Amino acid sequence: MPLSIADVRDAHGRIKPYIHRTPMLQSSQLNAHLDCELLFKADNMQKVGAFKARGACNAVFSMEEDSLSKGVVTHSSGNHGAALAWAAAMRKTSCTVVMPNNAPQAKKDAVISYGATVVYCEPTMIAREGAVASLMQQFGASLVHPYDDDRIIAGQGTAALETLEQIEQPIDILMAPVGGGGLLGGCALVVKQSLGIDATQVIGAEPEMANDAWQGYKSGVRVTNFVPNTIADGLRANLGVRNFEIITEHVDDIVLTSEARIVEAMKLIWTRLKIIVEPSAAVPLAAIMDQPNLYRGKRIAIILTGGNLDLDALPW
Amino acid sequence: MPLSIADVRDAHGRIKPYIHRTPMLQSSQLNAHLDCELLFKADNMQKVGAFKARGACNAVFSMEEDSLSKGVVTHSSGNHGAALAWAAAMRKTSCTVVMPNNAPQAKKDAVISYGATVVYCEPTMIAREGAVASLMQQFGASLVHPYDDDRIIAGQGTAALETLEQIEQPIDILMAPVGGGGLLGGCALVVKQSLGIDATQVIGAEPEMANDAWQGYKSGVRVTNFVPNTIADGLRANLGVRNFEIITEHVDDIVLTSEARIVEAMKLIWTRLKIIVEPSAAVPLAAIMDQPNLYRGKRIAIILTGGNLDLDALPW
Repeated sequence: MPLSIADVRDAHGRIKPYIHRTPMLQSSQLNAHLDCELLFKADNMQKVGAFKARGACNAVFSMEEDSLSKGVVTHSSGNHGAALAWAAAMRKTSCTVVMPNNAPQAKKDAVISYGATVVYCEPTMIAREGAVASLMQQFGASLVHPYDDDRIIAGQGTAALETLEQIEQPIDILMAPVGGGGLLGGCALVVKQSLGIDATQVIGAEPEMANDAWQGYKSGVRVTNFVPNTIADGLRANLGVRNFEIITEHVDDIVLTSEARIVEAMKLIWTRLKIIVEPSAAVPLAAIMDQPNLYRGKRIAIILTGGNLDLDALPW
Repeated sequence: MPLSIADVRDAHGRIKPYIHRTPMLQSSQLNAHLDCELLFKADNMQKVGAFKARGACNAVFSMEEDSLSKGVVTHSSGNHGAALAWAAAMRKTSCTVVMPNNAPQAKKDAVISYGATVVYCEPTMIAREGAVASLMQQFGASLVHPYDDDRIIAGQGTAALETLEQIEQPIDILMAPVGGGGLLGGCALVVKQSLGIDATQVIGAEPEMANDAWQGYKSGVRVTNFVPNTIADGLRANLGVRNFEIITEHVDDIVLTSEARIVEAMKLIWTRLKIIVEPSAAVPLAAIMDQPNLYRGKRIAIILTGGNLDLDALPW
């Protein structure tokens, strides 16, 4: 059975007691500035400071006691690692996280503070996956992949489920950043299977410097073992197999934006919404700022993915 | 008739269509860290980025067309000025704001961006009031004092009214920073007249470097023409006459905290709640961090007053 909105609804029922129902935020000044109506789903204020709490919680709370008892393992640039550590702690099992050595210090600290063991590796997909395979073999721990996993995609999709419940009128577009594609895939399923194919566009936004999803989406061939180098550290993963399938089928477009614009959009969100978002979360707004004509007059929901970064090393 | 909770309810009815009902935020990690339950009323996410929108909106929307047509004038370290400019623009009248020349650039810019005329003065109460008096005489504009005004106190009290509606269980303590005393006074009225005298303590928090409210509260004699020098720029005003009366009658205590602790608390709020607050907003949490034993096990609501500051000049 292919993953569907029913799985997302199941996931929501499972994780609701543990996660925050994060608020939808708006800024009249930002709307006036860009001449469109932006509704921000503030998952930077989610548990562990990122939407990743949704998928990790769904995966861990879907597991049987037997397999859970040997612990869970994953690879993550940070937020999924923290989320899995948090969820594993709630079910009193151990968690090991393989992290690229260039992950931000704040994210390394967070994973450790939630009680996980951290193993560092080179920042490539091959290195990440190799380290995870060896840990699984060594301890019999179960992999909870950061995005190429139905439980994760269904969990992340709950961000869109809540968004559609929280907005008072229909939206023209839903935008989310795309890294591994768990969030974008899950949200696309929800939007297309609840509102129909044409009612609301689903658009992924990706840094030019990490454009593997865009390349794959445009060419029809998934890009693998691409090494992105972007300030949007949460988007340094390559699109997963399941994610590629869902996104190819349900997403209307993937758009790119520059590093400088990401920083500009991030500062604008801080200034206007008075919230802390990490660079990855600012990618959709950056894409809108690049091509305002495409979005003028539209009502657009944006998933703000996370708020974890080093406050002592801001990019301005 | 002395100001009462009925005036705050009237104010709420008047301003509701124009202000945000800001969310209540919590962090399990912060609660665990301080061993108490903290509920933050996020008025940093209010219109103009500060609770000041409440009072200014109430004052301007209480005015008759006749007096309003000659414009409004005020003195403000920033947020009240922006709020009055915003409210005046909604009623299509002019606004002049006298600002101390040491106000943060972000606050000067905000007042101007909402369409007010700015007049700079020395950072003393005498200079502020002198400049305002001369503007009133010159243009016949009406003064909307930043705190020593019943319409302002009633407006600011709506932050407590919403807080009591939004919390699901009773609180032991409500804390707010104290500068001129509009917010603390309005909130104290609401808490004491709706919950009774003993059910919930109301505590004001003030920087040691701006301790005029504390001095007046402890001695029974209001301190005037004191020149505070604190990073908490929103609290550089002296307690007003009406505010002193209300606070003396209804507030249970005023506590002090240091500059270093204010910065530490501010960074903790940014890190844990993923929101931008200005130094003034962090003063109650700083006071809790100074004396955690006094707050252990308690359920405490804190009004986060604002989120306007220079992102290019952070205090860490």
